[in-house]
Amino acid sequence: MKKLINAPDDLVDEALEGMALAHAELLRVNAAPRFVTRAEAKGKGKVALLSGGGSGHEPLHAGFVGRGMLDAACPGAVFTSPTPDQIFEATRAVDGDAGVLHIIKNYTGDVMNFEMAAELAREAGIPVEGVLVNDDVAVEDSLYTAGRRGVGTTVLVEKICGGAAEAGRPLEEVAALGRRVNARGRSMGVALSACTVPHAGKPSFELGPGEMEVGIGIHGEPGRRRAKLEPADRVAEILMQPILDDLPFEPGDDVLLFVNGMGGTPLLELYVVYRKARAIAQGRGLNVARSLVGSYVTSLEMAGASATLLKLDDEMLRWWDAPVHTPALRWGT
Amino acid sequence: MKKLINAPDDLVDEALEGMALAHAELLRVNAAPRFVTRAEAKGKGKVALLSGGGSGHEPLHAGFVGRGMLDAACPGAVFTSPTPDQIFEATRAVDGDAGVLHIIKNYTGDVMNFEMAAELAREAGIPVEGVLVNDDVAVEDSLYTAGRRGVGTTVLVEKICGGAAEAGRPLEEVAALGRRVNARGRSMGVALSACTVPHAGKPSFELGPGEMEVGIGIHGEPGRRRAKLEPADRVAEILMQPILDDLPFEPGDDVLLFVNGMGGTPLLELYVVYRKARAIAQGRGLNVARSLVGSYVTSLEMAGASATLLKLDDEMLRWWDAPVHTPALRWGT
Repeated sequence: MKKLINAPDDLVDEALEGMALAHAELLRVNAAPRFVTRAEAKGKGKVALLSGGGSGHEPLHAGFVGRGMLDAACPGAVFTSPTPDQIFEATRAVDGDAGVLHIIKNYTGDVMNFEMAAELAREAGIPVEGVLVNDDVAVEDSLYTAGRRGVGTTVLVEKICGGAAEAGRPLEEVAALGRRVNARGRSMGVALSACTVPHAGKPSFELGPGEMEVGIGIHGEPGRRRAKLEPADRVAEILMQPILDDLPFEPGDDVLLFVNGMGGTPLLELYVVYRKARAIAQGRGLNVARSLVGSYVTSLEMAGASATLLKLDDEMLRWWDAPVHTPALRWGT
Repeated sequence: MKKLINAPDDLVDEALEGMALAHAELLRVNAAPRFVTRAEAKGKGKVALLSGGGSGHEPLHAGFVGRGMLDAACPGAVFTSPTPDQIFEATRAVDGDAGVLHIIKNYTGDVMNFEMAAELAREAGIPVEGVLVNDDVAVEDSLYTAGRRGVGTTVLVEKICGGAAEAGRPLEEVAALGRRVNARGRSMGVALSACTVPHAGKPSFELGPGEMEVGIGIHGEPGRRRAKLEPADRVAEILMQPILDDLPFEPGDDVLLFVNGMGGTPLLELYVVYRKARAIAQGRGLNVARSLVGSYVTSLEMAGASATLLKLDDEMLRWWDAPVHTPALRWGT
């Protein structure tokens, strides 16, 4: 295992410490239990947005804490769900008397722990709503999931709900918006290499020199099939086809196209995949109204990419374009 | 070789095409000769900034084209200098009658071709100044360089000069500012893995499982020494020590600390390195006034990181903080 870390046990805490120091104007870290909040005082009467999950997917989620996006992130250990206690304390810390929206990727541990935290919060008098993200068309059930996994659409839910919350929309409305984004977002990923969880010390699976894993999960869970590595244009087709087949994307639809790197794939390659993915979407008559290209939902140093397509409506467009100021996404400020 | 590409010969053109499509509001690509300019009309009376070099270091340079930073980027093939013709045509395309500043990383081919292009431009009546970036303290001469190599400080020169140019400062002043940034910036890098140039098809060097290359260049050129991989905190010391020893950084100095990923290293690890690098700088009495953490000057999928320290003055601070709107750096807009 070759990593720029100290002890595996200290990795997440040290990285968050570094992150809070590098972005002191934006972030605060609470050490025990571990969560990240905005540096600014919480907005009274503003719905608070909270997400979380295993670490190793950075910048997701702590990199999206800041004005116009999340109020708090709860990072677990690498690829390990945060605890109900973490989530509950973070919920309490950011509640501004307008309730808290939990944005949860669909993994069994995450779902269970967020549910327990939501119950604790409700008992403490804090209204909590949840949006479950399950946008991955690759598999219906997997190693860590009943139903579809939550992947790239999570970023879009966090940004779009973040815009609406910042504008003072009430909890039920922000939650309904988040569920609509999830319902209209679809993703699919491919891996060219495995990644190594520091505590394990060896790659989570093996891929032969000419192989790729089609439909990979963000923890290296198996996908649909092992296949021969193909040229980028063909990989873009392999990603986009099941996405386009899964939802009635219709000619004339405005869409957001997000090409995401898994961590170890250079930006140069992501733009090659984006180029073809966009051409495929346009070939179906879709209007690619917004784009995002970069490594935003990663799996440590895994090589690979995912595509996410969101069928936009006017409200989503409006909140996507709204100002955001976080370590990883920033515009309008 | 496992990459998301089509034919190696098409990689750079296809990536730039994807980039221009993803950022249509910011960028235009000229196909032959190959260069990238801002989408907006050129500013009459504004000094134009142009940089370039081999591809494979993205987002450097094309990702820094946009308001407040570069006016044009000239990407060569992967790890290959752009031609004088490319640079000359781009210079002509962006000249707004206030002259053009060339920002050149110190590699023999780049220096030669930028010089030839500058001569052609001057013959065509376009005033051109050059800033040579040679901030890498690792080695005095290397495989592709007489003198020190140009690495992380390049981004800081581009941003700071970009701010001054946008504010209407004249060519000589912007050039002098760029030279001052270079003179006060120092960098050092480490690699945990090699990268594979697509045309070569195999890694450019071999590193054993427990080894790192200290003082690596951004093309995989050998550094100071091959060493046993150490914990991140020790690696941060190995990077910061020669930087701090090379320039009279003095207690009370304001500095910008930039921790850069080489492409294959996760953000989580970069923040761990940043945390310790910052502590080391503070231990010397320096005031880390600004920070940048991310993969901005990459070597394809190479794993590793570099540290850059810039001794700031008030003018540099002002232009660093000025608004910028490019694909890879954006704030204030």
